[in-house]
Amino acid sequence: MTTNATLHGTSWILGAPTDSAGAPRFRARAAADGRELLPEFFAAPERDVDRAAAAAKDAFPAFRATPPEARARLLERIAALLAERGGGLVERAMAETGLARPRLEGELARTTNQLRSFAALVREGSWVDAVIDHADPTRAPLPKPDVRTLSLPLGPVAVFGASNFPLAFSVAGGDTASALAAGCPVVVKGHPLHPGTGELAARAIVDALRECALPAGAFAFLQAGGARDVAVGLELVRHDALEAVGFTGSFAGGTALARAASMRARPIPVFAEMGSVNPVFLLPGAVREKRAAIVSAFASSIAGSAGQLCTRPGLLFAVEGADAEALVVELAKALDAAAPHAMLSRAHRAAWEERTEALARIAGVERVGASAVSGTHTPRAGSAASASSAGGSASSAFSGGASSSGATDAGARPKLLRADLASFEREPALLEECFGPSAIVVLCANERELQDAVQRVPGSLTATVWSAEADRALARELLPLLARVAGRVVHDGVPTGVEVCAAMVHSGPFPACTRPDSTSVGARAIRRWCRPVAFQNVPDELLPEELCEANPRGIARLVDGRWRAAPERSAS
Amino acid sequence: MTTNATLHGTSWILGAPTDSAGAPRFRARAAADGRELLPEFFAAPERDVDRAAAAAKDAFPAFRATPPEARARLLERIAALLAERGGGLVERAMAETGLARPRLEGELARTTNQLRSFAALVREGSWVDAVIDHADPTRAPLPKPDVRTLSLPLGPVAVFGASNFPLAFSVAGGDTASALAAGCPVVVKGHPLHPGTGELAARAIVDALRECALPAGAFAFLQAGGARDVAVGLELVRHDALEAVGFTGSFAGGTALARAASMRARPIPVFAEMGSVNPVFLLPGAVREKRAAIVSAFASSIAGSAGQLCTRPGLLFAVEGADAEALVVELAKALDAAAPHAMLSRAHRAAWEERTEALARIAGVERVGASAVSGTHTPRAGSAASASSAGGSASSAFSGGASSSGATDAGARPKLLRADLASFEREPALLEECFGPSAIVVLCANERELQDAVQRVPGSLTATVWSAEADRALARELLPLLARVAGRVVHDGVPTGVEVCAAMVHSGPFPACTRPDSTSVGARAIRRWCRPVAFQNVPDELLPEELCEANPRGIARLVDGRWRAAPERSAS
Repeated sequence: MTTNATLHGTSWILGAPTDSAGAPRFRARAAADGRELLPEFFAAPERDVDRAAAAAKDAFPAFRATPPEARARLLERIAALLAERGGGLVERAMAETGLARPRLEGELARTTNQLRSFAALVREGSWVDAVIDHADPTRAPLPKPDVRTLSLPLGPVAVFGASNFPLAFSVAGGDTASALAAGCPVVVKGHPLHPGTGELAARAIVDALRECALPAGAFAFLQAGGARDVAVGLELVRHDALEAVGFTGSFAGGTALARAASMRARPIPVFAEMGSVNPVFLLPGAVREKRAAIVSAFASSIAGSAGQLCTRPGLLFAVEGADAEALVVELAKALDAAAPHAMLSRAHRAAWEERTEALARIAGVERVGASAVSGTHTPRAGSAASASSAGGSASSAFSGGASSSGATDAGARPKLLRADLASFEREPALLEECFGPSAIVVLCANERELQDAVQRVPGSLTATVWSAEADRALARELLPLLARVAGRVVHDGVPTGVEVCAAMVHSGPFPACTRPDSTSVGARAIRRWCRPVAFQNVPDELLPEELCEANPRGIARLVDGRWRAAPERSAS
Repeated sequence: MTTNATLHGTSWILGAPTDSAGAPRFRARAAADGRELLPEFFAAPERDVDRAAAAAKDAFPAFRATPPEARARLLERIAALLAERGGGLVERAMAETGLARPRLEGELARTTNQLRSFAALVREGSWVDAVIDHADPTRAPLPKPDVRTLSLPLGPVAVFGASNFPLAFSVAGGDTASALAAGCPVVVKGHPLHPGTGELAARAIVDALRECALPAGAFAFLQAGGARDVAVGLELVRHDALEAVGFTGSFAGGTALARAASMRARPIPVFAEMGSVNPVFLLPGAVREKRAAIVSAFASSIAGSAGQLCTRPGLLFAVEGADAEALVVELAKALDAAAPHAMLSRAHRAAWEERTEALARIAGVERVGASAVSGTHTPRAGSAASASSAGGSASSAFSGGASSSGATDAGARPKLLRADLASFEREPALLEECFGPSAIVVLCANERELQDAVQRVPGSLTATVWSAEADRALARELLPLLARVAGRVVHDGVPTGVEVCAAMVHSGPFPACTRPDSTSVGARAIRRWCRPVAFQNVPDELLPEELCEANPRGIARLVDGRWRAAPERSAS
């Protein structure tokens, strides 16, 4: 189960495995017990970063010129191959990440769904945001020109896979799917914690490109581990052939990449999603009337996937009182009842244990439930150095290096902390993401304090509010404040579980993301890889198809200020 | 004419002139002859930068919550006041910038048109890009949530006025209009070359806010001259209360601001439009059949406003031969016939003369027309130091300091240079913007060289092609290449004259802009100041009006994948 005879352990460029001679080697480790997994992996040397970027640049003119139907079929073929090979993918991902089978099977379904969604988006065609303003040659004092605009792809992009979603936010994940959909070649930097899963996913893309007779340079996969983890990342971001970067991972990694990109001679955008505290505001009426639902929903949301989700609720605010006290006790009990769960790596585990203990030592903060009784659970493996570098969603600067091996432990047990508002306001550490199965309940003296608290939370992917009928006035005041803090406002629900749909925004103000105007989930994710280009007085025969007067693509367009829906997509 | 009794010479914050005690003083100068203009101006000290930013932050919650109708009326009232006071504005701008009355009257009309366009956009309401995906509680394995998204304003923004458009890209220009339309308070850094024009425009906004009973903190105007020019700019970009920056000016200024913003603890976006070379490709058939039209159009486009337009065509490519030779001769003759025109400042003039002379000294480059005979026209005023710092669209780092005074000269005379493709490929200086009334014709040996040349030009606001029927095959090959280089592709026209419309893109790949995914002209300009926010399972009564089920604002929305046009805006 720890070997996979089909894995080459190499990078893949131009449709073929790379030459591993002289490449630095690294190992994958089982998340559950730290044992080494076969085969050995070969980190991409700089020459392969260059080759991949150059191949992507060379492929761009042909790839961007492919008809939308060809790109749609490519995405569907990738989805089909991933589904066909899903058994091996899920097995390997289970070993490398410690995530459970049902979660990974769900993630695989999500991944193929994303690919098929972007295929549908590209085939339908309206995503290009076509706008047409007709000429008016009689206008005084100057004639009005004909101006038409659509979105065109930026060029080759680099994608950085996330440690915690080895399928849906990794090699063949949403960033890759949306970039290929837009017509941008993709160079993926693999994550060192799941290099085998990465290679299997990469080969589905390689095979799909070949089967679809599309340019092999439109996709490359670079293995990156050890010292080459950070190096491959920086080389990609600084490479002149690349035009944009998609990243999901830690704050330290995302901001380092964004700064490197901004210091290039020709800066490029970095769309980094870096996780967040995801504050939750439980209004008094809701705590009174919906306590059981709140406890059940948040116990799952905090503990699921060992809390290793960027949308895991990290801070829960409520107004103190008997109902809130009961909620804290019941939530702690529900979390204590959750099964222990291996974390992504020993370094992730050690970092999380260390963080939660440091938080518990803050004056005004205390443990609730079993962890208050049993004390700490720090596993012995994982040095202090590797642990302290592991803050946020990943353990090394970009992605989390493999940790040292050690004996199997019982897995991480969820922890609940409570704090008063004064300590919350005093201690900035309480505002930072703590990546693992834990949360902090902050008790406010009254509704006014609850409102003040909203304005203290940092930019987040999500902000959640639970309200009952009796809370409506307060909820009405809070909603606009929550919308200033987050990319998504959730009502009477949990922030985990990011729906893939046209309206989704998976983003948020800094420090959650570097580009809060974008989203990495949902149909709008394709916009990251494009820019608008206007065509002025260009004859119909020279225009992109989407802008031709007769609308041969049949897409929705804004024409002279009015939306003209495509015939088959009639407007009401 | 050089005095204006109504000018305070100060900054304006919270609806009132600032206290000038102790503020560093600076002078405006007449562009035509460098003489000092009254009154004296007072550059904003850091305390005023702080006050303006804090006032904008305080005003944001109330200002963003204003109904669209209130913001539309504000914009219309600003337009009305600018029109009422247009006589004084144009007189002052003529003195400060040296631009001609018809140009400034046209620019004033453009400015009020922009304000009214954004008023209409806000009133109509569909710009919020509302997307609704309804819930499906029966979906397996998980119910589908209800997710709804719209664009919300970022917060207070800083706007930097441009030297060359004292009205339309300055205090009450497109950046300010679009930001106010979005619901973002604005702090403007005035341009030191037109502080009086700036104050007059600022007071129209101050008065309109008061008349409309809207928060006075929603707008501030900071005078910035002398050493405080750069300092005020950096203080604004680094100010924690500000969320975004709009800039039109030099490459050096724009990139310095973008880097400063990226190095903040909390980075913010800088939308900098930095000018470009605006390449033009004159295909052989067009040169043969449309020579007179080309000569006439480009002579005006190059020489108009003393060439001080960011869309002025700087590089014209053609295939060598008798037709191209005739074109060069006729274009030079037409440019020689243009009246001399004062430039924005003595520093601008000196920098342009120095640049064109340096270009003419490059091997393979030669002067054409009168300047080839008469030699150089360098005015004596303007030290070498001020001249060499004046590269790009402005003379000091951000905006161009006032230059030393001197005698009136005859104004700048347009210049035409010609170069062969070899020198163009050899010499990077030929790829840089040369801000003034000049252009370089690059003659290629054949059509293949012309195509190669496209791939060598730097990112530009515009790329233009002239083609005749005989050129269609070549034009078809060139168009996609031009679309990769520029934000706007123009056919059989000139790039100057940027239409204010929904389809306009005034932007382009770096180094033309820092954010090629945005535009600073046209309806899409409002998107710069917003980010999307999703609302998940939020009850109708708590949703923003634009997302309520009944669509009370009557806006076009994407509902479950279909555009639902507003009733009064029926779709065909």
